[in-house]
Amino acid sequence: MNVSKPLLNIKKIEKTRINQVDFNNLAFGKNYSDHMMYCDYVDGEWQTPQIVPYGPMEYAPSAKVFHYGQAVFEGMKAFKDDNGEVHLFRPEQNFERINKSSKRLAIPEFPKDFFFESLETLLQLDTDWIKAGQGNSLYIRPFVIATEEGVAASPSDQYRFMIITCPAQAYYSQPVKVIFAQEYSRSADGGVGYAKAAGNYGAQFYPTNLAKEKGYQQVIWTDAKSHNYLEEAGTMNIFFRIGDKLLTAPTNDRILDGVSRKSVIQLAKDNGIEIEIAPVEVKRIVEAARKGELKEIFGTGTAATIAKVIGFEHDGVYRDLPEVESPYSDFMKKSLQDIQYNRAEDKHGWLHKVS
Amino acid sequence: MNVSKPLLNIKKIEKTRINQVDFNNLAFGKNYSDHMMYCDYVDGEWQTPQIVPYGPMEYAPSAKVFHYGQAVFEGMKAFKDDNGEVHLFRPEQNFERINKSSKRLAIPEFPKDFFFESLETLLQLDTDWIKAGQGNSLYIRPFVIATEEGVAASPSDQYRFMIITCPAQAYYSQPVKVIFAQEYSRSADGGVGYAKAAGNYGAQFYPTNLAKEKGYQQVIWTDAKSHNYLEEAGTMNIFFRIGDKLLTAPTNDRILDGVSRKSVIQLAKDNGIEIEIAPVEVKRIVEAARKGELKEIFGTGTAATIAKVIGFEHDGVYRDLPEVESPYSDFMKKSLQDIQYNRAEDKHGWLHKVS
Ligand SMILES: Cc1ncc(COP(=O)(O)O)c(C=O)c1O
Ligand SMILES: Cc1ncc(COP(=O)(O)O)c(C=O)c1O
Repeated sequence: MNVSKPLLNIKKIEKTRINQVDFNNLAFGKNYSDHMMYCDYVDGEWQTPQIVPYGPMEYAPSAKVFHYGQAVFEGMKAFKDDNGEVHLFRPEQNFERINKSSKRLAIPEFPKDFFFESLETLLQLDTDWIKAGQGNSLYIRPFVIATEEGVAASPSDQYRFMIITCPAQAYYSQPVKVIFAQEYSRSADGGVGYAKAAGNYGAQFYPTNLAKEKGYQQVIWTDAKSHNYLEEAGTMNIFFRIGDKLLTAPTNDRILDGVSRKSVIQLAKDNGIEIEIAPVEVKRIVEAARKGELKEIFGTGTAATIAKVIGFEHDGVYRDLPEVESPYSDFMKKSLQDIQYNRAEDKHGWLHKVS
Repeated sequence: MNVSKPLLNIKKIEKTRINQVDFNNLAFGKNYSDHMMYCDYVDGEWQTPQIVPYGPMEYAPSAKVFHYGQAVFEGMKAFKDDNGEVHLFRPEQNFERINKSSKRLAIPEFPKDFFFESLETLLQLDTDWIKAGQGNSLYIRPFVIATEEGVAASPSDQYRFMIITCPAQAYYSQPVKVIFAQEYSRSADGGVGYAKAAGNYGAQFYPTNLAKEKGYQQVIWTDAKSHNYLEEAGTMNIFFRIGDKLLTAPTNDRILDGVSRKSVIQLAKDNGIEIEIAPVEVKRIVEAARKGELKEIFGTGTAATIAKVIGFEHDGVYRDLPEVESPYSDFMKKSLQDIQYNRAEDKHGWLHKVS
């Protein structure tokens, strides 16, 4: 690079851990690649990003992240194509979104060049951790945490931005049964639901555990005001197919603006599938299910890609979804993956080749 | 103690840091006492609590607390009376509340004997950090964080419970101006507002910053549904005095059940002050202010004790509160402190002497 000051510092591993990993048997998020990036915000400025061997770091017990949940994250993936080239999928979306999340959590925004330079360098160093082949990817987790020492409930004046990565296969191997939320809720109007704020996730664990006890892997969250509108799942946006039409909720300040969601909407448009982006009334979905018109429900998210829902509970009644021929979910999954693995034309310029 | 297995392990400091601290000039939450407690939850069990010198600890970058905000905390105080005896104020309330918060965040509950045994031992070891005299106290911060390594959004199977303490003077030295929330909100029905969940606090920093830019130190949160009802402040419950009557909102799943709030309610009853515990309509407060009947607003919380509000903004209009003679806020503050410093009769048994 032609800059006078190094954009990042690199300290490489001495010995790779890659041989300890069984790539055919990966538990999601349990194995970390050799390197990670961290970058500290001190004295009002992001310092030089550091690439170092993955490993634990020291934090004061009073670091604000532990007390006030001032933390945001992202989830993205890198794919290796059959020629061994590595591609990111719409990474500017994740970059913009982490800064949008940061803003809502009163965290300073991160510079674009720091983000892309360090991410690409990480991927180059750890390229062997990215396996080619259907379903394989490197899951990338950028995140920011508040590191100032202090137990007063006020914004931190120190932060750490980090990127860690881990090899991944498909996230949910099984189709899921879901329950529509009627008591608990995920986010409020005027709250932080649209941000990938750490606290949004911990808050869902208990109600999701209750759902699991009843045999449901996921909760579909409804609006907290009335529980009459279906919004999204814990880590996925959600689509419904009635007849031949796809429905999904518009984004608002309670719903994460998912990259997979917007890609699926675009793919629907590209392929002449009618799509309605409007509040999805629970009543309408239940009614369509009752009449046999509800053909599919599926979730979309970076980790899961597309997750098929095979049935749902609402008002104490469980309903199976029918098996349909040529489901949209399969079509969307294949279309997305064909682009991600660089096997299909990328007409919207979604792939970002790691040089 | 007469137990066969030690209830806790103690590793004392070699040299105290107490001489580095200016006790007449304490920034809240910036100086930590010599010792801290930690206790790990591993293999489905809380292990033996450890008392060790206060200091940083190592965490994996993938520790779940950093990503999913699975963390809760408490805030309580120890007071030294004029005879040099140390007292906690209603500590069972905090103990019960941290377990209530933990439950909502899918964190295993902490054993009562571990909590009290280690807390009292900490206070005995660090008794010199507790200064006698009006306004002085030792602020105690128990908290729990999720420590399992893993970037999948699911409950951790490892946790760390900690207690850190720091010497404190009064929290807000100045009376505060507040703004009633009309756009942002703190918590949803069916959410985690009633828990001291870490994520509830980080989520308030941005809207509170906006308020500060307009000259208000605190936001009084309203219900997310309608913004028509006044609920609580960021770290305080809130009381209104109309004529000679006190009003405060009932607790619900959006509002923290404050120990100071319930103590003030009891003190009102004990002293023949009429108190109404019912939803507090914004309209009613604004109307009372317009008519000159709104005499006081004050916040109650462990850190602040009682914080006087001197004016509020709503709908773009700022209103000063009148100066009243013998304000309830002063009476409540004095009554609470007289009990806390063991200068008045403790008829409800609120003081817990540290033996
Ligand atoms: C709450 C929530 N909704 C939806 C999504 C899906 O977003 P994306 O498609 O960008 O991964 C995620 C996961 O990232 C999420 O956390
Ligand atoms: C949101 C919130 N409300 C109210 C309070 C006051 O509660 P307590 O009186 O128990 O300190 C606190 C602080 O602890 C708080 O965090």
